[in-house]
Amino acid sequence: MTAPPPSPITSLANPRVKAAARLRERRAREASGLTLVDGARELLHALDGGIAVEESFVCRDLVRTADAAAALEQLESAGVRVMEVSPAVLGKVAFGDRSDGLVTVVRAPARGLSDLAPPPGALIVVVEAVEKPGNLGAILRTADGAGADALVAADPLTDLFNPNAIRASLGTIFRLPVASATSAATIDWLVDQAIRPIAARVDAPVAYTQIDLRGPIAIVLGSEATGLSAAWDDPRVTPVRIPMHGAADSLNVSAAAAVLLYEAVRQRA
Amino acid sequence: MTAPPPSPITSLANPRVKAAARLRERRAREASGLTLVDGARELLHALDGGIAVEESFVCRDLVRTADAAAALEQLESAGVRVMEVSPAVLGKVAFGDRSDGLVTVVRAPARGLSDLAPPPGALIVVVEAVEKPGNLGAILRTADGAGADALVAADPLTDLFNPNAIRASLGTIFRLPVASATSAATIDWLVDQAIRPIAARVDAPVAYTQIDLRGPIAIVLGSEATGLSAAWDDPRVTPVRIPMHGAADSLNVSAAAAVLLYEAVRQRA
Repeated sequence: MTAPPPSPITSLANPRVKAAARLRERRAREASGLTLVDGARELLHALDGGIAVEESFVCRDLVRTADAAAALEQLESAGVRVMEVSPAVLGKVAFGDRSDGLVTVVRAPARGLSDLAPPPGALIVVVEAVEKPGNLGAILRTADGAGADALVAADPLTDLFNPNAIRASLGTIFRLPVASATSAATIDWLVDQAIRPIAARVDAPVAYTQIDLRGPIAIVLGSEATGLSAAWDDPRVTPVRIPMHGAADSLNVSAAAAVLLYEAVRQRA
Repeated sequence: MTAPPPSPITSLANPRVKAAARLRERRAREASGLTLVDGARELLHALDGGIAVEESFVCRDLVRTADAAAALEQLESAGVRVMEVSPAVLGKVAFGDRSDGLVTVVRAPARGLSDLAPPPGALIVVVEAVEKPGNLGAILRTADGAGADALVAADPLTDLFNPNAIRASLGTIFRLPVASATSAATIDWLVDQAIRPIAARVDAPVAYTQIDLRGPIAIVLGSEATGLSAAWDDPRVTPVRIPMHGAADSLNVSAAAAVLLYEAVRQRA
């Protein structure tokens, strides 16, 4: 029922292509409030999460998976502007080789703590000073798997809706409420909400398995480079240790998140 | 007591520099049996693990951490050839910005299953068809933390001693026995050693927390893209599921490894 697509955009100098490609830079994302979604699964999660879509670039010759076809159909039936582009143009706006034939410009949902509405018995994840988008995305994916209710990025060093974070999260970043705030405000908010902060620290006296992780809790993780800041050295925060039995003295932050979140899931089952 | 260092190598065309830089390519690593260690912590683990060191490139102006100074001292007292180089030359052999001022050529310890000697009650990790060196390294770091006795890469798609795997492992790859083999040979070897293979599968009927993970076991993880191959669809292998409570249907392979390994640690405590 739709009209045949117009001839594809082949010029890398096309103004819309250039504007989208600029969203690969953090500054352009922060100035516009927009970001890029590479990949079909990621886009399907964004659409299911009710994210506002601005426009999409598609190279139909590269749309080969059922997910990609489904995502394209949803975009078209929602009346989104879908521009056919050449493979080279798609490559200019895509971040990697996993775009599934379509790259989409969406509005990044900026949220603060006051936008979160944790349910009774909430399971929250707090990541402080996260720097690598891939780590943030991996933690989001695990938080989604564990059924967490929200993720708070405390004093983040990356923008949350960095396209690499979106991809590493497999698009779960659009399904799980995500907010950013200062560490101090995050602690106060958790305490106000009667959510117990449980913070991973290599020097904590108690192992994570010895703590009751039922009821409303937040699993708090420090940055890979420097651990948690002094803000979390607070009597309202319970430090826990992940036992280390080898040569290294800590786990990767996303591995630590997985261990703690799934122990919470196990205890709550 | 040592003689003052000779003038640094500044030429990117220096034959030793070129030979070392070629080790950034898998083909050159496999032809020579050598690999590159970036970073001081990684090198300290290699030295502690008794790895044979060929030579090292150092830019003393960039040696700023205690770990880097300690590693350099150990190299020198072991009589390793340490070549002073300019920052540009170091950048040519280094993989990233985390070299700590020294990049070292070491012999990759090639091991097969027959080189492994699992202790009674062994905890083994098997990763099939791992493709991303960063994932392999992250799993190694977690396996080290969990006190695993060995890691077997079954039908790997990356070389185990890829410099990025070394770095993501924080050097624990030199502390934990690592072998590669086919998947079929790995299953036979595990059964011969009376080690129960426990394989993560999204469609397994039983959750991992419902299985006894004490005694000699192997945690088996499939590739991110395609999961486990048909070889593991074997009555001698116990499939287990990690419960998924969100939008995505699986965890990242290194997150899955963390969840399963630390549940084994918890049950064994």
